[in-house]
Amino acid sequence: MTTKELLQQYEEYKLKISAYSLAMTTMYFDMQTTAPKKSGIYRNPRLAYLEGELFSLTHAQEYFDLLETLSKAEDADELTRKETAAILKDLNKTRNIPKDVYVAYSELALNSENAWEEAYHANDYSIFEPYLKKVIEGKSKLLTYRDDYGTKSNYDLLLDDYEPGMNSEEYDKFFNLIKEELVPLIHKIVKKGKIDDSFLYKHYPREIQAKVMKELMDYLHFDFESGILRESLHPFTSSFSKYDNRITTKYLEDKLDSSIFSVIHESGHATYNAQVSDELAETYFFDNMSMGMHESQSRTFEIYLGKNRAFWEANYPLLQNAYPEQLGDVTLDQFVDAINASTPSLIRTEADELTYPLHILIRYEIEKALFNGEISVEHLDEVWNSKYEEYLGIRPEDDRTGILQDVHWSDGSFGYFPTYALGSAYAAQFIHAMRKDLDIEDCLRNSRFDLIKDWLKEHIHKYGGSNLPKDQIFIATGEPFDPHYYINHLKEKYTRLYHLDKE
Amino acid sequence: MTTKELLQQYEEYKLKISAYSLAMTTMYFDMQTTAPKKSGIYRNPRLAYLEGELFSLTHAQEYFDLLETLSKAEDADELTRKETAAILKDLNKTRNIPKDVYVAYSELALNSENAWEEAYHANDYSIFEPYLKKVIEGKSKLLTYRDDYGTKSNYDLLLDDYEPGMNSEEYDKFFNLIKEELVPLIHKIVKKGKIDDSFLYKHYPREIQAKVMKELMDYLHFDFESGILRESLHPFTSSFSKYDNRITTKYLEDKLDSSIFSVIHESGHATYNAQVSDELAETYFFDNMSMGMHESQSRTFEIYLGKNRAFWEANYPLLQNAYPEQLGDVTLDQFVDAINASTPSLIRTEADELTYPLHILIRYEIEKALFNGEISVEHLDEVWNSKYEEYLGIRPEDDRTGILQDVHWSDGSFGYFPTYALGSAYAAQFIHAMRKDLDIEDCLRNSRFDLIKDWLKEHIHKYGGSNLPKDQIFIATGEPFDPHYYINHLKEKYTRLYHLDKE
Repeated sequence: MTTKELLQQYEEYKLKISAYSLAMTTMYFDMQTTAPKKSGIYRNPRLAYLEGELFSLTHAQEYFDLLETLSKAEDADELTRKETAAILKDLNKTRNIPKDVYVAYSELALNSENAWEEAYHANDYSIFEPYLKKVIEGKSKLLTYRDDYGTKSNYDLLLDDYEPGMNSEEYDKFFNLIKEELVPLIHKIVKKGKIDDSFLYKHYPREIQAKVMKELMDYLHFDFESGILRESLHPFTSSFSKYDNRITTKYLEDKLDSSIFSVIHESGHATYNAQVSDELAETYFFDNMSMGMHESQSRTFEIYLGKNRAFWEANYPLLQNAYPEQLGDVTLDQFVDAINASTPSLIRTEADELTYPLHILIRYEIEKALFNGEISVEHLDEVWNSKYEEYLGIRPEDDRTGILQDVHWSDGSFGYFPTYALGSAYAAQFIHAMRKDLDIEDCLRNSRFDLIKDWLKEHIHKYGGSNLPKDQIFIATGEPFDPHYYINHLKEKYTRLYHLDKE
Repeated sequence: MTTKELLQQYEEYKLKISAYSLAMTTMYFDMQTTAPKKSGIYRNPRLAYLEGELFSLTHAQEYFDLLETLSKAEDADELTRKETAAILKDLNKTRNIPKDVYVAYSELALNSENAWEEAYHANDYSIFEPYLKKVIEGKSKLLTYRDDYGTKSNYDLLLDDYEPGMNSEEYDKFFNLIKEELVPLIHKIVKKGKIDDSFLYKHYPREIQAKVMKELMDYLHFDFESGILRESLHPFTSSFSKYDNRITTKYLEDKLDSSIFSVIHESGHATYNAQVSDELAETYFFDNMSMGMHESQSRTFEIYLGKNRAFWEANYPLLQNAYPEQLGDVTLDQFVDAINASTPSLIRTEADELTYPLHILIRYEIEKALFNGEISVEHLDEVWNSKYEEYLGIRPEDDRTGILQDVHWSDGSFGYFPTYALGSAYAAQFIHAMRKDLDIEDCLRNSRFDLIKDWLKEHIHKYGGSNLPKDQIFIATGEPFDPHYYINHLKEKYTRLYHLDKE
């Protein structure tokens, strides 16, 4: 076949694969936001079947051959060569898994997620425990089919999947820095006593919260013609395409800042995909950013912009108008201090910026120990609780505020959590670079979030996932990744907020 | 192959076909309830691709052969024989259509729907007219590929597609009865003057409406573990499976009864599917009920139960609590009279129970004459307007409130409208049969809607679409279909409501 014919064949593959993927993306989104409880009885086997179909399609010898040829075809365009090479690299991870093993695992993961939900509602880890065991076994079995199986530990294989270039040695260094630098700081702050944030826990009706979200998203220049906001148990972002970026939140009527910061956070994810260049919009690079890179954009929005005083100079009047009784007496400074206050707490998604990486550290240590066979799923709830006591000085009293709080392990996403902490660290470095070009506070204060979005598009978003994380960081900042930007940011910010320098 | 092997092959086909269908059902539901405006840029070509895949799958020679063999295999179970025969019968309608003809017609139908929308907005039938002509020609051409082409008129072929066993001779009898019996009654009522229903048009906030719907659905024993309520531009029901039956509504803040009766109506559709027997839940019979049969269940809920005074003896306090300012002074009797009032109007979807079948009659007469070549699409707007004047005594002043009001003809759904009137008539007969076993008013009054649902399950729902409409009516009522139950119900009800017997 000529390259022209091969390219045509490749386009047909792309349409077919993207049609299957979109169908499944829609079904997963529906499952998490809309579908009634019992729907899984019928849906899950069919969704697993489609997963299998897509697996067959992307693991056909013909497709591999096509990718191999095109990735090296000198008369093919550069983007296609780069795209096919990237797909091939990722497919090599699953290339040798027998289809029945893959489908069985997919169905297990679905059932496990449903079991987690049941366990969560029943507040009972023992319902989830057998599924967690099976998912770990299943995930480990999948790894045995890889070409690189045995070249490093199973957990290192997983870490690299979510963040290319990372391994437990690198993460150990990163988390040790966090442990050494932040744990003492957190302890100092605990001794200092609490900043008053009691007004965040008044009654905030969900209908009003929903209206406030719409206005905040307008401030963020969220494009509602190419995106939506819905509700789900656990906030998330799902990018169906460049023209359809969806975020979810959940409304807590007794915690004002929960939905606000989850919406700002998820808007960061959605904006990343929405701003991928048109050239890459229908390529593999539209959605293959590393997890750490993606999290860096959500954390940029949530923490470095959303918790900035200047952000609230523009938006606090909106909140005071929406909740005159609850916030009428609260000054801007009181509000900004409250949303930045640090207090050790049990729920990761509600954690403040400073204690957040400790929540991740705990998950990292547990995952690593599980995969290295140092601990088992038995009594894992107690392991969890003890680590919270050790690092944060508080102990969960039940499973819902303990080990069952996150959905991630239920579908086998091990090695994913560490990227959450990494994302915050990348973001600190991006913000440092952005400051060289933009007066960030000026943009926030004057409702020119579009300028910030433009900077992110130009230096990060437009590339999609076409660069490795390390390369992308260098492109955007002119430096290699350096976690000290993150640590220094946290130390400076919290020293100032809690007046620790004045002691 | 042995029958056992064939049955296994058949199970694989079923899983594959149902997986594709569910994926597309989810995508269409998402499109109508959730997806942002621009999402179609990426979704539509992929959805069309999946439609094509499903067409190829269900029109493969191997699949036809399998169905033929199994439908006659004496050692296959009876349900499989019956199911394969039913699928084959339906597939034979499209079996010989060349894929390019099918695709060309699909594209024509899409363009025609777009033209209808343009014409609707421009309020100008002439924009739609050429497309209507082409769609009728295209639909007629598709019929020429059928095995039964020429055995009866084209219009009769279409009527039978939507309601197996029906033809224009039967429909003529049915609509003549409606014309003779109801037109004089409607004229009498017009002379009597209007019942006051002005309070239905006060301001009813959508948030409160949404809460009321939830309570009404609880009263209807709607199973929220196997179903949901969402919003869409036009209310509809989508049955994903026995375990996932979804209804939608739209909230009009200046018309109280709109969402109430659309929710009760769609709950009737959803309950039909939710109560199909477990044995049939994953068969073709789960969802192949005739249009008339399905409409009979929604109309049973909406009209015969939902507009019953006893229904509101149980539920009117809920409305008065929800809307004390709007309904505090309105008595139960005033409310029940208002929701049952009859006034000739131009828009079918807003018509009352008594004038509704006349709207259908008009469409039936026009469709039949178009397909029999008695009239053409030229000046069809004037034909339409004259019929409204003749039957309802009012003449549309423009196309938007006249011939352009419904979307159905634009995509070629000819022969579908008549089932709307038929459904109401079936329902009257079902209610008559139900009264022999149940004190309906007692059930409604005492919030025992479960007893009504049980009766419907036992006599109708559990069978799904496994019986022909005529057989199903006999099973449920012990009699053949008799439209007099419907006519008599309307005559008695409206004679009483408008005190026509006291003249």
